[in-house]
Parts: sequence; C-alpha cells; structure tokens
Amino acid sequence: MFRIGVDVGGTGIQFGVLDEKLNIMSEYSIPTVTSDPFSNQVGRIVDGVLAVTAQAGLSKDKISSVGVGIPGIANQNTGEVIFCTNMGWSHVPFGEEFRQRLDIPVRIENDANVAALAESVAGISKGTSSSVFITIGTGIGSGIIINGKIWGGAHGIGGELGHVIFDLNGYPCTCGNHGCLERYCSATALIRMAREAIARHPDTLMLKMVSNDITKVEARTVIDAAREEDPLAVEVYATYIDYLAQAVANIVNLLDPEVIVIGGGVSKAGSFLIDPLRRRYTKYVLYNDQTMPKIKLAVCGAKAGIIGAAMLS
Amino acid sequence: MFRIGVDVGGTGIQFGVLDEKLNIMSEYSIPTVTSDPFSNQVGRIVDGVLAVTAQAGLSKDKISSVGVGIPGIANQNTGEVIFCTNMGWSHVPFGEEFRQRLDIPVRIENDANVAALAESVAGISKGTSSSVFITIGTGIGSGIIINGKIWGGAHGIGGELGHVIFDLNGYPCTCGNHGCLERYCSATALIRMAREAIARHPDTLMLKMVSNDITKVEARTVIDAAREEDPLAVEVYATYIDYLAQAVANIVNLLDPEVIVIGGGVSKAGSFLIDPLRRRYTKYVLYNDQTMPKIKLAVCGAKAGIIGAAMLS
Repeated sequence: MFRIGVDVGGTGIQFGVLDEKLNIMSEYSIPTVTSDPFSNQVGRIVDGVLAVTAQAGLSKDKISSVGVGIPGIANQNTGEVIFCTNMGWSHVPFGEEFRQRLDIPVRIENDANVAALAESVAGISKGTSSSVFITIGTGIGSGIIINGKIWGGAHGIGGELGHVIFDLNGYPCTCGNHGCLERYCSATALIRMAREAIARHPDTLMLKMVSNDITKVEARTVIDAAREEDPLAVEVYATYIDYLAQAVANIVNLLDPEVIVIGGGVSKAGSFLIDPLRRRYTKYVLYNDQTMPKIKLAVCGAKAGIIGAAMLS
Repeated sequence: MFRIGVDVGGTGIQFGVLDEKLNIMSEYSIPTVTSDPFSNQVGRIVDGVLAVTAQAGLSKDKISSVGVGIPGIANQNTGEVIFCTNMGWSHVPFGEEFRQRLDIPVRIENDANVAALAESVAGISKGTSSSVFITIGTGIGSGIIINGKIWGGAHGIGGELGHVIFDLNGYPCTCGNHGCLERYCSATALIRMAREAIARHPDTLMLKMVSNDITKVEARTVIDAAREEDPLAVEVYATYIDYLAQAVANIVNLLDPEVIVIGGGVSKAGSFLIDPLRRRYTKYVLYNDQTMPKIKLAVCGAKAGIIGAAMLS
C-alpha cells in the first residue's frame, strides 16, 4: 500500500505518493487559489490526490491514507480546520468535505507538527522517540514528538513555541501580547535587531551590502556580514544566538527531548548557526552536567511537508 | 497485591501501603538523617518499607513494587540518583543499594513528577490522559503527564518549569541565570515583590500585620492583606497573578494539556488564587476562542508523595 502527503501552502499545494520505504514515488503541485469557495478548494485538493496517484501509475485502491499539512490548526477528531489564515479558512469541515468526495482515510495537521514528524520518521531525528522541531522564519513554528507521535495538545492548540512569553512586558507581538518568543528568535527579530543597530551605527558592512537602503536588510544580510566579521553584524548576531540559546534551553529544561531540530529559513546558515548555538545553550540548562538533547539541523527541507503529512496515519 | 510509596523529604521520610483501589492502608514515617553514610540512609528506607508492610499486616511477598519520590532527579533506567541536594546525594546508586537489601522492584522519581502522577491517578486530574502539575512554594516545581505517564524527559532533566527563561535579562536566579520563571511566580517572588512595594509605600496593612518588621512579610501576608482590600497588597497580588497567568498560558501555548493543576503552599489561597488566575490566563493564550485546558487546585496535598510514588511502576 501507498500513502499520500499533501502540503498546503499560501502559494502552492504539493502532493506526493510515498511507498512503504518512505520513498517519494511521484510528485505533483497546483497553485493555491484562496478566492474559490471552500468546497471548491477541497475539490481541487481531491483532484490533486487523484492526479498524483495516476501519475504514480497506481489505482486509488492502492492508497491507504491521505495526510494534509496546513499552516493553521485543526481538530484531529472531527477533521475540522479551526484556523488557516493563509487559506482564508475558519471553522471549516475539511475532513467531512474531503470524505464526501473520496473514500480514503484523511488526516489534517499543523505544518510545523508535520515537519517535526517528517524529521522524526525520515530525517535527522529518525530513530528517536522524542524530539522538538523549531522552524525559524518570519515567525517561530514548532512541533513536539513524544513516544514517536505528534503531541499537538489535548485541544489541538499546543506547539506554539513562538507565542510563549519569553520577555515579560517585552516587545509587542502581532498576537496582541508582549514579549512573545518569536519577537526575539525569528528572522523578523534578527532583521529588527539589525536595523535598530544600523540606525545607531550606520558605518557597517550590512548597510553597504544593501546599497545604503536599510529597508532591504534581511536575515541573510546580518549573517553574511557577520561571516565577514563586520563588528556590528557580529555583535547583533551574537545577541540573536544568545536569545536562541535561551529558547533552546527552555525546551531542554521543560521537555528534555532526545533531539532538538532546527529548520526554516534562518537554518540555511548551517554550521554558522548551529555551532555557536550548541556552544551557548548549555549555559542556560539547569542540569547541564548531564547528557543533554542534541541540537541538529533539519534535513527534510522542502519535502518535509509531503513526507510528514503522508506519515500522519 | 499491594504497592508501597515512599516520600523522601528534607525533614522526614513518609511510607504508605496502597491497596489496588489506591486506598492508603497503613502509614509510617522516620526523620531524615542526612549525616549518615548513603548506604545507611538506603538501609533506613528499606527498614521503613518493611515496617510499614508489617504494620499493614502484610508479608513482603504481597508487595508488588516500591516507588520512591525524591526532591531531586534520577535516572529511571539505572536507578541512579543524579542530584538530591536536600539529602546530600550526588550520583549515588540508589536502585542498586536498595535491591541488594530487598528483592522488590523499585523505581525512583522526582517529587514534582510524583505529585503530578498522584493527581492524575487519584486526584483532581483523575481520568485525564494529559496534565501539567505546577507546585508553587519557595521555588516552582512541575510535572508533566502525557498519555497517562510521567514525561520527565529523555535524559531525566525535563519538567523544570521554574528555570525556564521568562524575562530576558531579568532578576538573577539561584541557578546562575537571569529571568527564570520562579523569580516571578514562586512564593519567594511574591514576598520579594511585596517587600519592594512596602519599602516604597510603608503605609500598608501588610506592614501592620507583621508588627512593622518587613523581614516577617510572607506570601500569606500579601494574600491576607489583599483579601482585606489593602490597596498596596491588592496591587502586588494582581501583578503576581498576572505573572502566574502568563506562566500558565505558556504551558497552554506549548503543551495544551487537558488540565493544569496548581499545588504547593501558595495554592492554599484556594479560590482567591484560582479564580483570578482563570479569568486572566486566557488573555495570553494564542487560540483562546477554543476549548482550553482547565485550571484546577491540587487535592492530594501531603498524601500526593506517597500515592504518586506507589503508582510509579
């Protein structure tokens, strides 16, 4: 039997057929069309499932399950999507609509949880029974794996590391609270920190790299300038790594998984991110003379959404 | 068959025999003697196990297991106690020493984890499969139950909510870091906040209640004066509840258990603590229009150590 993973994103929807060894046999994609009525959007996803199945040379009775990852939250029991802002979905009966069109078991799950599962079954944390996946991009996403399974909470609202209070009365967050972790550890945070520093000290390689247009400073600008040993970039990046180290240590102190996996855009910095992070986080762990979780870079990359979704059931 | 729970504390060691319905059939206690060599301390615990068994009118072959809760951390696989400061233990082979004296399966576990398990099997969170127990005293202890079992981490160093960074570059903590959660949410924190407020505004009922000796201000002083509507006590207590609400919301945002159980000395304030906390924490939860974890007061009290320890295996 084969499984299908569907990765729903704001710009496109990816489909993949996996064999029992977790090899991707066939891939397919369609653009996201959020202007369609919800029912038509589900129809297009079902069509995509059938298309990728046919493309793999399979009949649909060879498909044991379909898993769908979404940038939002869903109720595992009912298949209801609670929120999925990018798709314009709020309290929609995804599972029910899907099943009316296709008689294959379907599960729907948050995309960071899906990526956590992908790394746990086929990626860098393969073979472990507990891991926490942290994706560092515009915001901070996270997925918790305990005893080999996604732990998304009793009501499906857990795994939101980005909105844990990390700095009492700190920076305002888009969620309405102050001091959320993603205000300090996301790519957006790194950019804000760099721009604030540049405004104070404009004599920096960072500003030269963006032709003196501060609005063009990105996370990559800071990282590239820090690699070139620009003093201001080195300082900003060290502060950012220190924040990230405290976030990682919080996961260790509370959950102590076997592995903490770092993914997302900022993780493309590779060893320039993970090496100083590994040196730094132990300082903030309470029992830091013990064996501690390993900190590793995600390896599934863009395929994580398909692989993890296929493994949902 | 029967189980024995042992609750090791800094001043005394409690023993209890539980029947299959989790009723405590017999109890026994001995004082803690930390000056004894480790081997003798284990000997005294084994003697206590035999004494409470005899007191229940049972022979030792009726005892299926012994569980031991300690104010420290232990390796579940080897039975090694890693740290237990109050007992003066550091890297000692508790399980091995115990088994040399008594041929009954023994397990050893952190006391906050044990209390979490007690509430989960016989207390306020009975019947749930996930809960987080927070004990508010001199520090903050916590225990996580997932799928009905203690989750103490892959290396036994998790469940340390008190040392999660909650306020970047905040108050210095005894652990060496800054801004640990227990600096804001423990009884010690409430006392510090009250003393700082009194030093600025000495015209308060709190100071009268301690005969003008600020060093005698306790958590209870603030709570009692806030009940009497002393304006300064009300203000300090509201700030404290707000911190605690953010700590509770952090647990919801990250772990979303079915229930969050509040125990420890400060929880003796009862509804005066839990009611404002329930009203306040939802503000800090990301998906706060969903069903959320219930916040409840612990009920096992002083018996939690015996009951939870007995349920370890």
